Amino acid sequence: MSEDNVNMPHRLTCTAPVNIAVIKYWGKRNEDLILPVNSSLSVTLHQDQLKTTTTVATSRSFQEDRIWLNGKEEHISHPRLQSCLREIRRLARKRCSEGESAVDGIGLSHKVHICSVNNFPTAAGLASSAAGFACLVYTLARVFGVEGELSAIARQGSGSACRSMHGGFVQWIMGCKKDGEDSIAQQVEPESHWPELRVLVLVVSAERKPVSSASGMKTSVETSHLLKHRMDSVVPDRMEEMIEAVHGKDFATFAALTMKDSNQFHAICLDTYPPIFYLNSVSHQVIRLVHQYNQHHGEIRLAYTFDAGPNAVIYTLQKHVAEFIQVVRHFFPPEINGGQFLKGLPVDHAVLSEELKQAIGLESMAKGISYIISTKAGPGPCVLEDPSQHLLGPDGFPKNESDSDSG
Amino acid sequence: MSEDNVNMPHRLTCTAPVNIAVIKYWGKRNEDLILPVNSSLSVTLHQDQLKTTTTVATSRSFQEDRIWLNGKEEHISHPRLQSCLREIRRLARKRCSEGESAVDGIGLSHKVHICSVNNFPTAAGLASSAAGFACLVYTLARVFGVEGELSAIARQGSGSACRSMHGGFVQWIMGCKKDGEDSIAQQVEPESHWPELRVLVLVVSAERKPVSSASGMKTSVETSHLLKHRMDSVVPDRMEEMIEAVHGKDFATFAALTMKDSNQFHAICLDTYPPIFYLNSVSHQVIRLVHQYNQHHGEIRLAYTFDAGPNAVIYTLQKHVAEFIQVVRHFFPPEINGGQFLKGLPVDHAVLSEELKQAIGLESMAKGISYIISTKAGPGPCVLEDPSQHLLGPDGFPKNESDSDSG
Repeated sequence: MSEDNVNMPHRLTCTAPVNIAVIKYWGKRNEDLILPVNSSLSVTLHQDQLKTTTTVATSRSFQEDRIWLNGKEEHISHPRLQSCLREIRRLARKRCSEGESAVDGIGLSHKVHICSVNNFPTAAGLASSAAGFACLVYTLARVFGVEGELSAIARQGSGSACRSMHGGFVQWIMGCKKDGEDSIAQQVEPESHWPELRVLVLVVSAERKPVSSASGMKTSVETSHLLKHRMDSVVPDRMEEMIEAVHGKDFATFAALTMKDSNQFHAICLDTYPPIFYLNSVSHQVIRLVHQYNQHHGEIRLAYTFDAGPNAVIYTLQKHVAEFIQVVRHFFPPEINGGQFLKGLPVDHAVLSEELKQAIGLESMAKGISYIISTKAGPGPCVLEDPSQHLLGPDGFPKNESDSDSG
Repeated sequence: MSEDNVNMPHRLTCTAPVNIAVIKYWGKRNEDLILPVNSSLSVTLHQDQLKTTTTVATSRSFQEDRIWLNGKEEHISHPRLQSCLREIRRLARKRCSEGESAVDGIGLSHKVHICSVNNFPTAAGLASSAAGFACLVYTLARVFGVEGELSAIARQGSGSACRSMHGGFVQWIMGCKKDGEDSIAQQVEPESHWPELRVLVLVVSAERKPVSSASGMKTSVETSHLLKHRMDSVVPDRMEEMIEAVHGKDFATFAALTMKDSNQFHAICLDTYPPIFYLNSVSHQVIRLVHQYNQHHGEIRLAYTFDAGPNAVIYTLQKHVAEFIQVVRHFFPPEINGGQFLKGLPVDHAVLSEELKQAIGLESMAKGISYIISTKAGPGPCVLEDPSQHLLGPDGFPKNESDSDSG
């Protein structure tokens, strides 16, 4: 920590990724500590396409902890924010008292200003809380000189945030301890392990705001008879199979398990009382399309997965991307003048055979998909060294005051 | 059997009802004998609104068994038709050899002509096979002098047909014997038991033909991990609770169980691989509407249930029907000039309060519901005594030749 001007805020900026589960997390056994009823596994998406950026500033001149999210000041009193701040400071004091920290006791007493933005619109319906809390915890840890296992802290911000603390293929081990100490995320394979794997986010135009996943999973735990069976008898075997499939880069197994687990998660939502619907008619059509496509090719080339909303995330291999994009364009004709339909990693052009169109044989749904984000597996959180990237100015307040709302 | 002219066909005409399950049948443990993986319970609907009529004629002059369904000759070789014919004839021969039958051995050797029609359009998406096979088996049994337990024979035509062999509230006990002898339907309460109960069939305009229930449940048995839990651990308790609720005319319990079991059945469909979707966006909207309506009133006044298609069947009490019909008219504005929106039992007019509209707070979906059939619980199969009702003429062939297709 630079001490050249004791009143000048110290600033650090980091980025963290979004992750998309292939074995789903749905249900907590402890609401406060955010301990899940089953283990889960996800792929960390590349930050070139989707990321959260967070700047943390500390200064002895700050009167209180404050936070700005996507240009708007929010309440720092939110219990989950408080959990993360409290835990990081507790660990920092512990390290400091053990003489292991580069941060002195005075630095630890400073208040923080936090500013965080996503590079993707909230309207994309991607769970931004995972990247957001991962980025917050990673940045705070760096600022306060905390090292080691941080996923258990990120978990207390938002369950799936723990998986965004690593790159590549990540499992969240549910753990069994009451205090949640063993409920942590671990990398199964780094992002370099399976370079052919591609991820396509199909952003679906939703007509209604879905039930939040936090409240949805609470109702599921309370009312779904099938959830208990899923957590006790289905997920443990699936986790083993999925880890094996990732190690072996066995796409067919990876894909089939991904689809089955997405379907089972949505089945649990439907078995919840009152039932929860995250899939809409466009989602249903994407599911039909994927199965028809795979059947036509006589092998599993695509997998779909859906979180707590109608957006489809497609896993496939690089060699199949170009054709699939044409399939999507054909069956979900994009809005004319609706901006860029395909964002992210570039995709070659491909010609769609009449045979394939016929084999899929679905009615087209114009404008059902707003746009596609083409991406791949990527690394975990990292520090931005370039000071021009700080979201907070030298005064410790958001740089772009016109975007902020200090009210 | 009249023998005044040995060549004149003997004719008998019966009717049988549709039934709508409140604890769902989904999955067979024996495909040939149609033995279910769980017990189920249904309400038999009144034949004034929905029924199948079947005439069976026998004559020694008939060369072969033949069948006409809704004006079109069909293959008599269909395995399930053959099962029913074979079983009835076997029992008839048994009774005859034991000297208990009014039908002589010669009558038993006669071929049959069968003609069957529904008084509701197939487009209504109501499972017509239950009423159809119940009517066939009931009529054949009368013709061949077979008495006693007939539901196990109807079951072999179409599983849920066994429940249409009785009026009122009917359970299909799954049984445990390998030959299926104990897999039979029993009346829980007659239709007179709960006269206030009303049934509204909301016929939804479907854009696609759903997967047949026979093939759907086969795939579920093969692929759904959750189905085993449902059949072993969920349905046995629900059957007990439901029977109790029917005995006690406890609408709140009856309704909550009905909704939960419908949702769980569709959850199993979603957990099937590839997944099966029977609910569409209109079905989802009806589900939301029912929960919002009940919540507004602070008590459960409506229950929905869905079979293998998007149509909603609503159970409610007579005193709530008028208001609910107005709610449906408001949130699913009917097609102008689209014919009668409300069919069946007459419904009083009601005024919809602004408060209720606001409390439901859904966007309206014009033409989402084609029409409503208003009905109630009704009796089981019965004989039509009026000879003018025969669907086969004195010659044993369909009366209205213009409707038939003997090709």
